[in-house]
Amino acid sequence: MEWKIDRQASKPLYQQIFEIIEEKISYGEFPPGSVLPSERKLAERLDVNRMTIVHVYDELQASGLVERKKGSGTRVSTHKWGILPKGVTNWRKYIEGGSFLPTYPLIRRIREEAKQMQDGLNMSSGELSADLFPAHFLQASFAEQTFPSNLGYVHPQGHLPLRETLGDYVKNYHNIQTTSSSILITSGAQQAIHLITQCLLNPGDAVAIEAPSYCYSLPLFQSAGLRIFGLPMDEYGVNPNDIEALHRKHQIRMIFLNPTYQSPTGTVLPEARRKKVLEISAELGIPIVEDDPVSLLSFNGENHPPIKAYDRSGNVLYVGSLSKVIASSLRIGWIIGPQSVINRLADARQQIDFGLSIFPQLIANQFLLSDEYSKHISFLRGELMERRDVMATALHEMLGEKVEFTVPNGGLHIWCKIKGKVDDHKLVDEAIKNKVLFMPGSVYGAPNGYVRFTYAHLEKELIREAISRFAEVVARVI
Amino acid sequence: MEWKIDRQASKPLYQQIFEIIEEKISYGEFPPGSVLPSERKLAERLDVNRMTIVHVYDELQASGLVERKKGSGTRVSTHKWGILPKGVTNWRKYIEGGSFLPTYPLIRRIREEAKQMQDGLNMSSGELSADLFPAHFLQASFAEQTFPSNLGYVHPQGHLPLRETLGDYVKNYHNIQTTSSSILITSGAQQAIHLITQCLLNPGDAVAIEAPSYCYSLPLFQSAGLRIFGLPMDEYGVNPNDIEALHRKHQIRMIFLNPTYQSPTGTVLPEARRKKVLEISAELGIPIVEDDPVSLLSFNGENHPPIKAYDRSGNVLYVGSLSKVIASSLRIGWIIGPQSVINRLADARQQIDFGLSIFPQLIANQFLLSDEYSKHISFLRGELMERRDVMATALHEMLGEKVEFTVPNGGLHIWCKIKGKVDDHKLVDEAIKNKVLFMPGSVYGAPNGYVRFTYAHLEKELIREAISRFAEVVARVI
Repeated sequence: MEWKIDRQASKPLYQQIFEIIEEKISYGEFPPGSVLPSERKLAERLDVNRMTIVHVYDELQASGLVERKKGSGTRVSTHKWGILPKGVTNWRKYIEGGSFLPTYPLIRRIREEAKQMQDGLNMSSGELSADLFPAHFLQASFAEQTFPSNLGYVHPQGHLPLRETLGDYVKNYHNIQTTSSSILITSGAQQAIHLITQCLLNPGDAVAIEAPSYCYSLPLFQSAGLRIFGLPMDEYGVNPNDIEALHRKHQIRMIFLNPTYQSPTGTVLPEARRKKVLEISAELGIPIVEDDPVSLLSFNGENHPPIKAYDRSGNVLYVGSLSKVIASSLRIGWIIGPQSVINRLADARQQIDFGLSIFPQLIANQFLLSDEYSKHISFLRGELMERRDVMATALHEMLGEKVEFTVPNGGLHIWCKIKGKVDDHKLVDEAIKNKVLFMPGSVYGAPNGYVRFTYAHLEKELIREAISRFAEVVARVI
Repeated sequence: MEWKIDRQASKPLYQQIFEIIEEKISYGEFPPGSVLPSERKLAERLDVNRMTIVHVYDELQASGLVERKKGSGTRVSTHKWGILPKGVTNWRKYIEGGSFLPTYPLIRRIREEAKQMQDGLNMSSGELSADLFPAHFLQASFAEQTFPSNLGYVHPQGHLPLRETLGDYVKNYHNIQTTSSSILITSGAQQAIHLITQCLLNPGDAVAIEAPSYCYSLPLFQSAGLRIFGLPMDEYGVNPNDIEALHRKHQIRMIFLNPTYQSPTGTVLPEARRKKVLEISAELGIPIVEDDPVSLLSFNGENHPPIKAYDRSGNVLYVGSLSKVIASSLRIGWIIGPQSVINRLADARQQIDFGLSIFPQLIANQFLLSDEYSKHISFLRGELMERRDVMATALHEMLGEKVEFTVPNGGLHIWCKIKGKVDDHKLVDEAIKNKVLFMPGSVYGAPNGYVRFTYAHLEKELIREAISRFAEVVARVI
């Protein structure tokens, strides 16, 4: 919600807010019977004194626009606007239904705070900070672009020149052999995972994910009615033999893995385990979905070919993305897999959103083809490594024995265990008060007391301050 | 599928094709056990002699790469590549499952033909032709744009400046009062409808649509497990009183309407009926989803305010789009509704694809704010009206008494009834042979013998020829 108030205007604030709400009610944005934000919440959001909002709500009540009842808040009056009490949709009934589940409350809360918090330090968002985006290169790429004359619907699998470029890209960077006809361009990795759950799995199907896993934080698995089972992880990721055991018990239909700089743990699955996982998956006939958003972001010169690079029989659906290496708002991801699977997913995708806009595809293609791209990746690696170092040093210095973590060799996050008994909700409460944000491990299915810090999203100069705020929080909570 | 063959190369064609397939098999694009395209299909697709493909498949068989069995086609060998017969995913099992249903075969067939047909005349695609897209204006809009410095995730409801612009836009053009906080920007109207079915309805819910309706052609209603009931239409669209009757019988949970230049019929719901529909929907507490993609494309200066323009109690979810007035590959649509509903949909949307790329939003915003936009709309109206006239004249001249249709006052299509007994599948078969494409009415739930012709997608000079080919088809079929 945006509420534009003008503190310089001669019109008093309460009057401005009254008019905004009156307008929103008259436009049907707050339909008769719907609940207005609480006084406290609205006061916080608009950064005004709570008494101002109390005044506004008193006036709204006096004018008959709203009704107030103890315990049920402030509701838009159903008698106003000549509308019969019954003459309105009970939206609550609709909103609370639907097969697609809402985001988990704790994650939603952290995201809300990230949007609103003033002077907050945000290590919760898994994306790059503004200064790491190659905005200049992208603008230049676009300027060089000759516009296609036909701006009609793009091919269901995505813009062909970009698919061809991506075919070369995954070969050069990831040792994956494929051709443009086996690539589907998606709106980031998120849509790739969504399409796979919608089109290739059925309600009740069992899937295996890493424990902990980013996947655990996605209600889309539950929305699709899937049963999720965790594969325990050690410092090298999952143990391939656990797949067989899990399969015997639950009849696993698909395995979701993020083998390189895994989110949230930062672990890298060693080559031998990659091959073993592939072998077992093939033997059991269970396909692997390999999520690989950050393997390019290696700090020590290591190159970890994805599981897909060893796959000769089409058992792996490989999911890549430019969100973490160029910009999340580009919204370019892709799936590589057998053609029959790609066709099925592309068809569903047409129905869901009729494909991706041509413009980000043109921009991405031009940038990937340019010499600037590899320079950009080198730059990113250097910057992220420095941030990782600053964060690791700060954690050691400020928290010492209170925490335990492994310094990752790539990616965006440090996964950190707080020693002692910690309640994640209390930890988040205190952190919000202290204006520092991170992801509590429980949203990824970890026990209480784990934390994922993203060093990529905070500018280098702010990382020490963020960890210092976190140290204060830990001192209060343990 | 793209298969690049070079007719100028010294390497023989069969050798080139052999190598492409060999490569695709080795990359896992055609996994062991999967079926290759039939000889006939592949020959057609590559535009080579069928004997060339027979030769290729013989060679593939000789080298042990594929196995051929009478009746079950050509399959990739499961013994090759050191893979155990069992060591591979049975993808067919996955592809045929999934809760999201594939596109209807007849529509898929027409789309496939539209992509492949050489010298075909396509009146089936409901989009503008290449020469109607304002590519030049869009490129200029983008050039004027200052790039945002932060290319991180966009607001879950979409880029705020664009939402503000759209707030003014729907006020100026459609008389809808709203504010940016009640707008959700979507990937076209298609995604808007998808989100509504996923988040606000439950499997088993009954929904009412116009009969015939574009909605009928969308398997996404069935994918969501909805029961669909048609509201009969006369020349002025649906009869509001039918809603009550339908509700008594089936407990309708939502009404989907496309009141202005409806697809496929072209009808316009009169103002009195709009108000009556709104009244009834409010009384029964059944929300309306109003799909309004083309109301700007009026040829006679008429302006038809949407049902949403009369809605003061938030009973209408209004769906708009720039696909038919700017370009489908822009992928910009929107939903306007109560804030609580918009928040719910925005949350789901984040989970599905993490929002729309910032780039098309920047481009659209700049173009909508410029003076060029209204000029573009005038240009579009003029061009489309001329095409409508050419098509209507050709239909009269070439088919005369054999067909019946009303000349629409706006939009993209003519809805035409062929008199006499017609089988839609046979009609389409003959049309494909005669290299002319259109949408048979049955895909919209109409009886056999109706046809939707899109005049927007064919350049003016080609329309007469297209109708002439259609006339030949009719002569053969009746």
